[in-house]
Amino acid sequence: MSKGRLEAFSDGVFAVAITLLVFNVQVPHVRAVDLTRALLDQWPAYTSYAVSFLTIGIIWVNHHAVFHLIRRVDRPLLFLNLFLLMSVAFIPFPTALLAEYVQSGSGSQAAAVVYSLTMTVMGFLFGALWTYAVHHEKLLVVNLDLDEARASIPRFAIGSGIYVLSIGVAFISAPVCLALYALTAIYYVFNQVPLPIRHDDGD
Amino acid sequence: MSKGRLEAFSDGVFAVAITLLVFNVQVPHVRAVDLTRALLDQWPAYTSYAVSFLTIGIIWVNHHAVFHLIRRVDRPLLFLNLFLLMSVAFIPFPTALLAEYVQSGSGSQAAAVVYSLTMTVMGFLFGALWTYAVHHEKLLVVNLDLDEARASIPRFAIGSGIYVLSIGVAFISAPVCLALYALTAIYYVFNQVPLPIRHDDGD
Amino acid sequence: MSKGRLEAFSDGVFAVAITLLVFNVQVPHVRAVDLTRALLDQWPAYTSYAVSFLTIGIIWVNHHAVFHLIRRVDRPLLFLNLFLLMSVAFIPFPTALLAEYVQSGSGSQAAAVVYSLTMTVMGFLFGALWTYAVHHEKLLVVNLDLDEARASIPRFAIGSGIYVLSIGVAFISAPVCLALYALTAIYYVFNQVPLPIRHDDGD
Amino acid sequence: MSKGRLEAFSDGVFAVAITLLVFNVQVPHVRAVDLTRALLDQWPAYTSYAVSFLTIGIIWVNHHAVFHLIRRVDRPLLFLNLFLLMSVAFIPFPTALLAEYVQSGSGSQAAAVVYSLTMTVMGFLFGALWTYAVHHEKLLVVNLDLDEARASIPRFAIGSGIYVLSIGVAFISAPVCLALYALTAIYYVFNQVPLPIRHDDGD
Repeated sequence: MSKGRLEAFSDGVFAVAITLLVFNVQVPHVRAVDLTRALLDQWPAYTSYAVSFLTIGIIWVNHHAVFHLIRRVDRPLLFLNLFLLMSVAFIPFPTALLAEYVQSGSGSQAAAVVYSLTMTVMGFLFGALWTYAVHHEKLLVVNLDLDEARASIPRFAIGSGIYVLSIGVAFISAPVCLALYALTAIYYVFNQVPLPIRHDDGD
Repeated sequence: MSKGRLEAFSDGVFAVAITLLVFNVQVPHVRAVDLTRALLDQWPAYTSYAVSFLTIGIIWVNHHAVFHLIRRVDRPLLFLNLFLLMSVAFIPFPTALLAEYVQSGSGSQAAAVVYSLTMTVMGFLFGALWTYAVHHEKLLVVNLDLDEARASIPRFAIGSGIYVLSIGVAFISAPVCLALYALTAIYYVFNQVPLPIRHDDGD
Repeated sequence: MSKGRLEAFSDGVFAVAITLLVFNVQVPHVRAVDLTRALLDQWPAYTSYAVSFLTIGIIWVNHHAVFHLIRRVDRPLLFLNLFLLMSVAFIPFPTALLAEYVQSGSGSQAAAVVYSLTMTVMGFLFGALWTYAVHHEKLLVVNLDLDEARASIPRFAIGSGIYVLSIGVAFISAPVCLALYALTAIYYVFNQVPLPIRHDDGD
Repeated sequence: MSKGRLEAFSDGVFAVAITLLVFNVQVPHVRAVDLTRALLDQWPAYTSYAVSFLTIGIIWVNHHAVFHLIRRVDRPLLFLNLFLLMSVAFIPFPTALLAEYVQSGSGSQAAAVVYSLTMTVMGFLFGALWTYAVHHEKLLVVNLDLDEARASIPRFAIGSGIYVLSIGVAFISAPVCLALYALTAIYYVFNQVPLPIRHDDGD
């Protein structure tokens, strides 16, 4: 399996999953005079669309950053990546769930827990993929500082840590949880996941 | 992040979003004898399918025209592009909304406002992306006339201006608004977005 | 606009449209004991899935055959291709319509007419694209026999002719129409669209 | 038709089909207090999502392994591949069917039979594609041992055999059948489909 193929397929899954999020926002079936109100009332659908879109976008950016440091793909890496994609392609479900139940008391907690769990699993799989790659030197680009690469693992895990934390927050308040996901996404817009830099780059 | 990657991912989102528009056109559930009438009655679904398809198609064409002039992608450009894609992938929602409510009095205005707002945001983000690129010479192809590039910004903004204007029109008449979107799309079929030409081209 | 870009985007639309056809086949909501019967009763959904899948597949094969002979893309060709994609991405709608109404008397005729019209428009746009390319020598690969290319146009149009004919058949019998679409698709599995051969080929 | 094109289109269909599986998992419409229970009760939806995702993922991996050994594509191979994609793009339907009916007695058997039949057809088409390629030397890469290639066919067929067997199991117990699909998928995560190795590889 060549690396280019794996990236192209992964990009396809990312592109489809991120675009399917719009089905989360549904046309309200109400009387014409009530439409404006109905459209405003479904603000959780717009918010969760934006948060999940940004989140998948950031996972995609980080996926490329990681694969920029990888030279070869072996079978375990191939399947770690497939499991990662399985969690990414699942994101439209908790997004729709949270949009529908975020304002409904006890239901909102269950919905937020499912969202947090999905993100935790995704973060764990991404961390596992990077940890695996770092411990198999032959998979990495030649000009990479291995000590630096290994040192990046704990800092890399901080993002996942926020999602683990959000499982707890989910039991307290779903809207706070949604705000936490939004802040995490915005944080990563401005800050890169800490990875060792590839020193000589011919891109 | 290489430019090729970003373009491939963007193309994927464009291709999925444009193809999902067909879900906007639904099979009527009526008695067999009423099917012809029901199919004719949902003309707004066909019209809005065609208008949105053409509009996304034109955004895609312009996206390529702009990235043809860009040589490198930095982090702000990466995220400006991601926000632009967020607005493009959202288009199936206002399209479905307008198709359902365009003939329903007060509801039609709300639907047209949502459509116009989506397009305004899209146009604004596209303008922001181009303005950012033009002010960062190191991101542009080397043989580009920078004065010409900067002079293109106001002319580039005219398309966005029409969508801002359409917000006002939306409060008066949704069908007029739909006609305005259609005319804007047809206009851009015959006229390119004004961009500086890349002088030496090896494509 | 480079030819490679246009082909990649078109391939994306083809791949999404062909895969969305499966939504045409829906899970029946019946009592458990009635499921086998309900699954057998929706044979038109399986048939129309197979016919439309094969038809889009053949359009894709022919699209490549045509673009194999094209060297450059100008603006009219770009938009002829966009209109062609608009008709291809629309195919899931008449497919779903035909699947639901093929067994329902007068409704079946309306459904078959919509299917035939969609295919006729698609065939006409494909023919227009090829005719346009053949009359603009600078768009074609250099080693193409122009007389041969022009002579291919009428033979190329035969496929479209069958779809025009099927509009008439649609008013008589929708199942016969569905059989006609199936036979047309199977015919093209075994016979290529007549196109001039590119004489010196470095693919 | 170049091999690269065919692979890119196939990858597109794989990526869309695998990502559409998430629609199989639906947001329950229940009272807020019942949401946790409703989410737990739809475990077959999560299980069948995971099993079908992994299965399509493995088909994609094997598709690449096979096309890595193929040098040229002729018309029969092109259409064998199109029929294979038709069966792969169909998988979301039996997945949704099994998720809905796996716990419903007699309905569960019909659902499991449809799933097993789909997989059997897919396995048969994949085997036909490989058998066809192996018997047309000019389609294969030059450095391939033809005796080894032909010897791979029966071992290649074992996967299909399991799906044929599962048709019988489907009449006894749908949950056992689902477990069998899961085990097959997990088996192929750890074991490659037996194919002759390409001896000199410049990837």
